[in-house]
Amino acid sequence: MRQLLVIVLAAGEGTRMLSALPKVLHRLAGRPMVSHVLDTALAAGAAHLAVVVGPGHEAVAAEVRRVAPEAELFVQSERRGTAHAVLAAREALARGYDDVVVMYGDTPLVRIETIGELRGPLAGGAAVSVLGFRPDDPTGYGRLVTDGDGALVAIREHKEASPEELAVGLCNAGLMALDGRAALDILQSVGDANAKKEFYLTDVVEIARALGRAAAVCEAAVEEVVGVNSRAQLAEAEAILQARLRRHAMDNGATLVAPETVFFSADTKLGRDVVIEPNVFFGPGVSVEEGATIRAFSHVEGAHVGAGAIVGPFARLRPGAELGEGVHVGNFVEIKASDLAPGVKVNHLSYVGDSSVGANTNIGAGTITCNYDGFRKHRTTIGANAFIGTNSLLVAPVTVGDGAYLGTGSVITEDVPADALAIGRARQVNKPGLAKRLRERLSAGLAPKK
Amino acid sequence: MRQLLVIVLAAGEGTRMLSALPKVLHRLAGRPMVSHVLDTALAAGAAHLAVVVGPGHEAVAAEVRRVAPEAELFVQSERRGTAHAVLAAREALARGYDDVVVMYGDTPLVRIETIGELRGPLAGGAAVSVLGFRPDDPTGYGRLVTDGDGALVAIREHKEASPEELAVGLCNAGLMALDGRAALDILQSVGDANAKKEFYLTDVVEIARALGRAAAVCEAAVEEVVGVNSRAQLAEAEAILQARLRRHAMDNGATLVAPETVFFSADTKLGRDVVIEPNVFFGPGVSVEEGATIRAFSHVEGAHVGAGAIVGPFARLRPGAELGEGVHVGNFVEIKASDLAPGVKVNHLSYVGDSSVGANTNIGAGTITCNYDGFRKHRTTIGANAFIGTNSLLVAPVTVGDGAYLGTGSVITEDVPADALAIGRARQVNKPGLAKRLRERLSAGLAPKK
Amino acid sequence: MRQLLVIVLAAGEGTRMLSALPKVLHRLAGRPMVSHVLDTALAAGAAHLAVVVGPGHEAVAAEVRRVAPEAELFVQSERRGTAHAVLAAREALARGYDDVVVMYGDTPLVRIETIGELRGPLAGGAAVSVLGFRPDDPTGYGRLVTDGDGALVAIREHKEASPEELAVGLCNAGLMALDGRAALDILQSVGDANAKKEFYLTDVVEIARALGRAAAVCEAAVEEVVGVNSRAQLAEAEAILQARLRRHAMDNGATLVAPETVFFSADTKLGRDVVIEPNVFFGPGVSVEEGATIRAFSHVEGAHVGAGAIVGPFARLRPGAELGEGVHVGNFVEIKASDLAPGVKVNHLSYVGDSSVGANTNIGAGTITCNYDGFRKHRTTIGANAFIGTNSLLVAPVTVGDGAYLGTGSVITEDVPADALAIGRARQVNKPGLAKRLRERLSAGLAPKK
Repeated sequence: MRQLLVIVLAAGEGTRMLSALPKVLHRLAGRPMVSHVLDTALAAGAAHLAVVVGPGHEAVAAEVRRVAPEAELFVQSERRGTAHAVLAAREALARGYDDVVVMYGDTPLVRIETIGELRGPLAGGAAVSVLGFRPDDPTGYGRLVTDGDGALVAIREHKEASPEELAVGLCNAGLMALDGRAALDILQSVGDANAKKEFYLTDVVEIARALGRAAAVCEAAVEEVVGVNSRAQLAEAEAILQARLRRHAMDNGATLVAPETVFFSADTKLGRDVVIEPNVFFGPGVSVEEGATIRAFSHVEGAHVGAGAIVGPFARLRPGAELGEGVHVGNFVEIKASDLAPGVKVNHLSYVGDSSVGANTNIGAGTITCNYDGFRKHRTTIGANAFIGTNSLLVAPVTVGDGAYLGTGSVITEDVPADALAIGRARQVNKPGLAKRLRERLSAGLAPKK
Repeated sequence: MRQLLVIVLAAGEGTRMLSALPKVLHRLAGRPMVSHVLDTALAAGAAHLAVVVGPGHEAVAAEVRRVAPEAELFVQSERRGTAHAVLAAREALARGYDDVVVMYGDTPLVRIETIGELRGPLAGGAAVSVLGFRPDDPTGYGRLVTDGDGALVAIREHKEASPEELAVGLCNAGLMALDGRAALDILQSVGDANAKKEFYLTDVVEIARALGRAAAVCEAAVEEVVGVNSRAQLAEAEAILQARLRRHAMDNGATLVAPETVFFSADTKLGRDVVIEPNVFFGPGVSVEEGATIRAFSHVEGAHVGAGAIVGPFARLRPGAELGEGVHVGNFVEIKASDLAPGVKVNHLSYVGDSSVGANTNIGAGTITCNYDGFRKHRTTIGANAFIGTNSLLVAPVTVGDGAYLGTGSVITEDVPADALAIGRARQVNKPGLAKRLRERLSAGLAPKK
Repeated sequence: MRQLLVIVLAAGEGTRMLSALPKVLHRLAGRPMVSHVLDTALAAGAAHLAVVVGPGHEAVAAEVRRVAPEAELFVQSERRGTAHAVLAAREALARGYDDVVVMYGDTPLVRIETIGELRGPLAGGAAVSVLGFRPDDPTGYGRLVTDGDGALVAIREHKEASPEELAVGLCNAGLMALDGRAALDILQSVGDANAKKEFYLTDVVEIARALGRAAAVCEAAVEEVVGVNSRAQLAEAEAILQARLRRHAMDNGATLVAPETVFFSADTKLGRDVVIEPNVFFGPGVSVEEGATIRAFSHVEGAHVGAGAIVGPFARLRPGAELGEGVHVGNFVEIKASDLAPGVKVNHLSYVGDSSVGANTNIGAGTITCNYDGFRKHRTTIGANAFIGTNSLLVAPVTVGDGAYLGTGSVITEDVPADALAIGRARQVNKPGLAKRLRERLSAGLAPKK
């Protein structure tokens, strides 16, 4: 198998983003763009990753280290063109991989298969393979000029193109594969004899041909090579990615009632016959088992939803929510870092955090696990088949045994044994006629008698 | 009036759905596809319905019985083509209706009017009338080949079509009307002398003509004849249906601020000057009276909303919610199986279930009707002009009289007479300086002194 | 600078809206259409506004007075055509402004710059300047017939147009600029010698030319001149306006993850690096400072969100919500008329209304400020660094001092001094084995022993 070095150019400032954040850290489907590119490079079989970052882009470097700790980081200290940026990774290039692929941190939607296709001609002896696409309007793009046999002759900038070259519909997407043994020589031959005094990566085509080597073209869909230079383009890229993820979910047997209203993370996993109603948002780290339903207006991240469970409408599952088979989590309910065993029901207006709840326990409306004392989080443990009465407040750390029954409105500060009834509330007192008198005081603007 | 038999073919496995559920039970606008087809058949005037289901499709049969108890069910035990499927209903055909229309359980968007148009030529003496449509790309579809006078000559499969026939844009949608007196004879003449040894319904055109009978064409919009074979097509059909429902709502005088974000059931009823803000979901069985407003992020099913009422944002109305004129139901509020008389306000973070509430009563934030004891649901009855203090917990069965006033945070377990003040809470105690000491303990990781 | 009179025609009945509300009061981005038009007129430099309303349209007049108190109102008592409507403002016209522009209350999307371009020819000596647009299908629209030099010759109604005139793609948008010194004379020359016996504004072109004066054309995008005559068109106009507002937000450095799911008001202000997740609704009067995040499913109106604050998911900010830097408002939380100082956290299931909360105070889940006694609203004041325990109920008016600690489930009716611990709840009692017996009674359908 041919050894692959992927060089990711991630040094752009992205001034059109008007952002304090480096461009490649802006997110798609909840994940920084550069991490999507690194994921693709790794999935495409990169033996080694070299990432070229801008000076002072410590945040980019940190994200790269987080996602791909094995990647080598290079700093492009001056901005002198794309070939110059690639040569910042000279040290990696010098090691002599079989194939080198140049990717871009702001072009995050290239498919894994496309990287393979781009490399194809190298195995056949080409020195360079360039990714092309056919935009609706090619104005402004570099044209991929080919000869009668389809071999790539040159990449011609729009303003330098002849009328025949301008008629070429196939444009330069920027991505390129290079013969790893020849790449360094070719790149070092790129000159800066041009108006901007920059070193253009596009020159490698003509250099390779001058060396008697072949150059080839590989074509990708327009949607794959969308580059992100503005917030509007970021939104367009997000839309393309979401369309892919939605299509993938449906092709694998999930029903999305209104796909355009469902937002996925790249890693969302849905089983067969999962039904997703309109307006559901999936953050990272979610898996939903077969036959579960996520109802409208739900927000789910870092959660596992068991088979046949029903979540929402208006439910929020936060990281660490583990829902067993057939669990029901209803409206205005938040679950965080909690295991709900099969058959548990939390149907209304509750917060269950840092808890474990045994099978078939029913948690009444308005229940809150008081897990935070202002300094630390504590755990609540509830057994199976318990009945947690409406508006129970469970002051953690606390344990409620199997089959226990908590009276409505109780503040539970001490453990409750199995099968015990726990209650903690003041007795109701009715004061006949007093509502009338109270209303008279209040309507007159007087305070109630205490 | 001509007697109409509609035969609905609903035996498809739908393997491309990747589902444990038979295809025709997948839902559009909350209703199984087959039920949409049955609704259309009945609305189009079917005197009799025959539904052909697959072997073992008991769930389909059950849904048919639920929606159209008068329908006759037939099982297609072997899969030997569409004509074979229609002949599963031989017994019904043999009764000799005037018109027979063949519909499909997975083609749920045909309009009622179209069925009438399809039948038209039968009254004029035709033996067969076939529904056509003009797809953007006819590749793969059977072509409706007509003669110079527009009479249908044959339905030609794509792969058997001549170049001239391939140039025909009008394609076979599958739906067909047949002269009810001749239908059985014609169908029984269909042979299986073809590659797959199947009996094709499309052969009836040439058979009818060979008998000297006329065949006709009726054209429908592409959107009407969308067939559902995958989850992606299910989503497309849902989008078409929702667009119709939204358009219908607007044409009848409702404002949809962002129609594409509003999801209707087929039976949603909206009065004039109803305003629907973005992101509202209507389940089955909802009617909203004139001038009411459903605010953003609301989820409404099985509910009646009175004139001028305001619901949401973030409100959930569940089946049996009956809101009188001018009622306000606010954010994070769930109403279930409850009558709210005119002028009632439930504005924040409440659950009102199995209750009735009298006119102009104000229900404070955090109020919960505790309707479930772990075994049964009980009712709460609240009178008119009452004031239900914040976080009241009403343990059903319980009755609160007219004009009663419940103190903040009371657990109401006993009936409250009219005009009485009811209170049930512990008195507040301030412990000076203790917060400081508590913080010291907690920050050191010690438990608070109890 | 040339003095500009803008005459806004706002007398239409809008019968196709099927509404009790006059058409021009229907809303776009939360604001009546006529107010959008008045805003545009004022921003385009109108020295004077004349608004022509229908008889009995007191609600329109009231809205005009509210938005533009300086505007002069005229009533068109009879409906005799557009020129007749303009002449309802005869008194204003008679004052002799330099330029007169006629706008329409139901054509709310014309850009400010377009008004300037429309006036341009007047400065060059033209008597009339007409706004044109090029619809995909011009059928039914009046054509702007020009001569070889591009001067406007006539506005020809579709049914009166010759074949050559029908081939003209440029259509009449209705808006017109007139030489203010000549306008009254020209308008008074318009006759009603036509089938409907109406006075058509379009006649002024030929009248001006007959007087030897020039008429000119100015072209606008189709989207600007969308007129609203039905609810469907209202929704289309809303979509165009929202697309503009979304684009504006992105162009100014905000990230909209899914722009098509974010709904703005015309006055929403977003700082740089603000992130708006999918499904966020902005009512009027919102500003969000740099780096703040509004998470999915949030509803925000009349609120100010400080730098770096995090709002949502499922948060509702109502008018008067003032969030300081770094404030967190979490799920199922409603904030109304309250100041939250920097660092305050209200993360779950709470209602904070008519309150002020000091820096870094933590408000526990389920906290409710009980601000309403059935007659009046009262304020709650909470100091800095306080800890408001879960499910605290603060019965206003009440004050909690700096550093105070409220015990879980307390009803706070009296002021709490700084650094004090306040608690008000019944003690928990465990009754061993009683849950079991209770379950037996309940499962048998018996009431629990009280």
